[in-house]
Amino acid sequence: MNRIEIVPLGGIGEFGMNCMGIRYGDEMIIVDAGMGFPEETPFGVDISIPNFDFLEEYRYDLTALILTHGHEDHIGALSYLLKKFNIPVYASRFTHALAEKRLEEFNMMGDVLLHSVRPNDVADIGSFQVEFIHASHSLIDCFSLAIKTPLGTIIHTGDYKVDDTPVIGKPYDLKTLKRYGDEGVLALLGDSTNATVPGRTPSEQAVIPAFREIFEEVEGRLFIATFSSSMHRLQIVFDVAHEYGRKVCVLGRSMQKNVEIAEGFGLLKIRPDAMVSLSAARALDDDEICFIVTGSQGESRAALWNMATSTYKGMEVEPGDTVVLSARIIPGNEKNISRLIGHLYKRGANIIEERRRLIHVSGHASQEDIRIMVETARPKYLIPIHGEYRMLFRHKEFVKNHVPGYTDENVVLIENGDVLEIDEFGARVSGKRELNRTFIDEESLGEIEYDVIRERKKLASGGTISLVVTIDKHSHALAGEPQITFNGVAGLDPTNGFGADAREAVRLAISEMKREQIADKAVFRENLRVHLKRFIQKRIGTKPVILTTVVEV
Amino acid sequence: MNRIEIVPLGGIGEFGMNCMGIRYGDEMIIVDAGMGFPEETPFGVDISIPNFDFLEEYRYDLTALILTHGHEDHIGALSYLLKKFNIPVYASRFTHALAEKRLEEFNMMGDVLLHSVRPNDVADIGSFQVEFIHASHSLIDCFSLAIKTPLGTIIHTGDYKVDDTPVIGKPYDLKTLKRYGDEGVLALLGDSTNATVPGRTPSEQAVIPAFREIFEEVEGRLFIATFSSSMHRLQIVFDVAHEYGRKVCVLGRSMQKNVEIAEGFGLLKIRPDAMVSLSAARALDDDEICFIVTGSQGESRAALWNMATSTYKGMEVEPGDTVVLSARIIPGNEKNISRLIGHLYKRGANIIEERRRLIHVSGHASQEDIRIMVETARPKYLIPIHGEYRMLFRHKEFVKNHVPGYTDENVVLIENGDVLEIDEFGARVSGKRELNRTFIDEESLGEIEYDVIRERKKLASGGTISLVVTIDKHSHALAGEPQITFNGVAGLDPTNGFGADAREAVRLAISEMKREQIADKAVFRENLRVHLKRFIQKRIGTKPVILTTVVEV
Repeated sequence: MNRIEIVPLGGIGEFGMNCMGIRYGDEMIIVDAGMGFPEETPFGVDISIPNFDFLEEYRYDLTALILTHGHEDHIGALSYLLKKFNIPVYASRFTHALAEKRLEEFNMMGDVLLHSVRPNDVADIGSFQVEFIHASHSLIDCFSLAIKTPLGTIIHTGDYKVDDTPVIGKPYDLKTLKRYGDEGVLALLGDSTNATVPGRTPSEQAVIPAFREIFEEVEGRLFIATFSSSMHRLQIVFDVAHEYGRKVCVLGRSMQKNVEIAEGFGLLKIRPDAMVSLSAARALDDDEICFIVTGSQGESRAALWNMATSTYKGMEVEPGDTVVLSARIIPGNEKNISRLIGHLYKRGANIIEERRRLIHVSGHASQEDIRIMVETARPKYLIPIHGEYRMLFRHKEFVKNHVPGYTDENVVLIENGDVLEIDEFGARVSGKRELNRTFIDEESLGEIEYDVIRERKKLASGGTISLVVTIDKHSHALAGEPQITFNGVAGLDPTNGFGADAREAVRLAISEMKREQIADKAVFRENLRVHLKRFIQKRIGTKPVILTTVVEV
Repeated sequence: MNRIEIVPLGGIGEFGMNCMGIRYGDEMIIVDAGMGFPEETPFGVDISIPNFDFLEEYRYDLTALILTHGHEDHIGALSYLLKKFNIPVYASRFTHALAEKRLEEFNMMGDVLLHSVRPNDVADIGSFQVEFIHASHSLIDCFSLAIKTPLGTIIHTGDYKVDDTPVIGKPYDLKTLKRYGDEGVLALLGDSTNATVPGRTPSEQAVIPAFREIFEEVEGRLFIATFSSSMHRLQIVFDVAHEYGRKVCVLGRSMQKNVEIAEGFGLLKIRPDAMVSLSAARALDDDEICFIVTGSQGESRAALWNMATSTYKGMEVEPGDTVVLSARIIPGNEKNISRLIGHLYKRGANIIEERRRLIHVSGHASQEDIRIMVETARPKYLIPIHGEYRMLFRHKEFVKNHVPGYTDENVVLIENGDVLEIDEFGARVSGKRELNRTFIDEESLGEIEYDVIRERKKLASGGTISLVVTIDKHSHALAGEPQITFNGVAGLDPTNGFGADAREAVRLAISEMKREQIADKAVFRENLRVHLKRFIQKRIGTKPVILTTVVEV
């Protein structure tokens, strides 16, 4: 079988849950195992993960999991994948350190084989030879992958931007990429997140002038909210704070952990005494301290939200404070962020937002970065990945219209659940499968089946009723009053006798049933349910879930 | 009592549900009765309305409801208000026509006294004299209000922008506003929706060049999606379509109704034969037709969504079609719109979005419009209304910083539930009340109490369990097996004997209870619930709602 199969499990046609199988012969490697951020949170769901059951048919083919970088949408489902398929993991040391936090939650640290790799290391994984290409992104220690197969090389960009002057680490390693381009690249799997954005993505350093201005102007306390993984940004804040004589206090657990890990590896450079504890920060004057905090998305459990609405470890935002929101608005968070800003204004804080100054840059390739990527790698086939369909489509359109040699033939749009075959004759989707997501309740770390979510949606929209009917097991006659309990049902008025009327309706329905209809308990229960449902719909126009129990005495 | 009370019931600190009481002595008028768009839609809620129960204490003071214009966030709760307090309504004829649709749903048309008023009409309503000032906005036939009271004049801007060249109707009537400014204005209640936006809001006419370009370029079928109430926009599409030799077909029920009403009043000018039915449209060539459709927000029941995902009355979006999204993205709709665009791309359509061309302008005053408003009316007190707290705050900041004479003293921020008193000594908030919203299920047109929503949220997050226990009424001993029914509960595995274990846990709990604990049924039920709850939490880590029924035999 001289062909490659590309099997996306997530991240294609959606934001998050990045995960892709790449198969040659009877070997398959997996690139990334990310989690998603589903809208089903009202239904007891915290995160979603790819449906790894889909990999059962490849169980004996799986040889390795390769992590491009440490963002949650690339590693957050790691433990769930490894629980099912215990395969070795390859990643940078920083990515590993983040992944370990996840594995510890599952007590899996001892069970998993972790290979730490460095840029330009080459891992031999069966028929695959994988070179790790240093990539620039908003996180650090990130990779693009050059995956050599007997049929040709596949470049997986991971998340990237072409940053010539990142704050931490080297620029994107275009030299290595070019080496592969010169040798010939069969297929490029390219990040589409920012494919709708014209121009180049600004370097991480681009925010430094605005931060200097802010530190120059502000006299009171400074709070800088950003993503806990934005390491370049944190380095800039540490550096500029030092220039302007402010100490830095890091608040929010995820931020503190990430800073600790990055500093441990020497990736984040913090001067002695530059970072202070909360109690030390309190003792400083307002113009001597800068807080870096979690909560830029208006998350209701993060440090900033707590400080804005009540207290965070005894701290509150106060009049004269300045809050810098140094992050983009992730779609879906608009309302929460607007609420957060309202609370901050009420507290008397000054707010500096992304829209008004250059205090945030994206970590993803814009159109001109994509052009550089494609022109350097010159792949035979380009396959847009990472993004909603709209971004994938625009990725394709941009390259078709702006890079010579790319057409509908060799820019291939795929979706989750597709199987893309590449061989000497071309690239084509050979199979399409419906891939349901898997929902996770993070408290119990348990999976929630899709059917359960469906039931919960019904309960949410109409409430529930428990109907208990007691019958004589010999005569099949009603023995005592039907009992009805309501929960979450609208339109009930305690004064209008609705409960009594409902019981009467049930009694009447039973009196009209035939003996056989009562004798078969399943039929009887269903009949009762239908009768009560009709009564309720007529009377109050709602559709609660009705649970019926028959007690025989 | 020589003072005015301003009592906002909605629209202050939130988007939507605009409603305000203005009281002098023992008379109170209500301005607008709008609905809101709550996030509680998964819980069987369609819309929210202000909590009109709050007005009970003013029942005998209420003299009139005045509607500034016909947008849903200003009239959508009309019927619910009038059901409780049947007061006369004043509005423009177009606003009335839209309001009538709402009243008909409730069969209330015969019961309500409607006064149609025209610009510069003055209505004597007890101690209040209300002049209707022609206002420009994205809708037509809109008013600002000059409300004369014995204590001074209050200007309520309604929603407005200062449009010097609207498409339909006259510019904003600054002349009348200036007359009041010259006489002296006590307080201005001003629209804050766009108070964060610098500059002037462009005129409705500003989109004409982009529409001409689009009609010039596009050769296939044209679909233009916009709000069904954006009458100026519709007029422009009709006019430009005529210029370029295309007929117009209006799709989507709300759009069709609004067009019919506006044309009936001669407000929308449609040439004979310019508008065609769907079947006539089908017979035309692709470059002879332009569809105006609902669904610019990605609403899943609107014409555009249906055409993009399946069919709408047999119509589908096809390769070569061009879809123009001529509307802003209302916060919260980002994901649905992105999905819609993905579906349209998949269908092979070309998409023209607001971000890339000037095909949409706002209907609300930007900062420089606000400056014109304040400088013309020169109110003693400025009270920002209509917007989230963030916008109200920025409204205040802008005026404080850019209009001489305004300070923290005379720009007053209020919130829903406040009572703002204005008298000769000043303006101050004299009372603060918690104002819960009222939720509405539009199918049954019934109110949903907040407690019901709270119960539904619990059901949604953990599912429900019905536990039925049968006991002997004399011996208080268990008579038969406990029966347990699950719905929406995660972590149940039919093979792990969970059900049997749960029944056993209940049996065990009962066996350890004292006789008296069983004899009191309320205590018994609660005890059973707590025991089963603990068992479930230990075993599967979830918190379903448990409904317990005790059957005595």
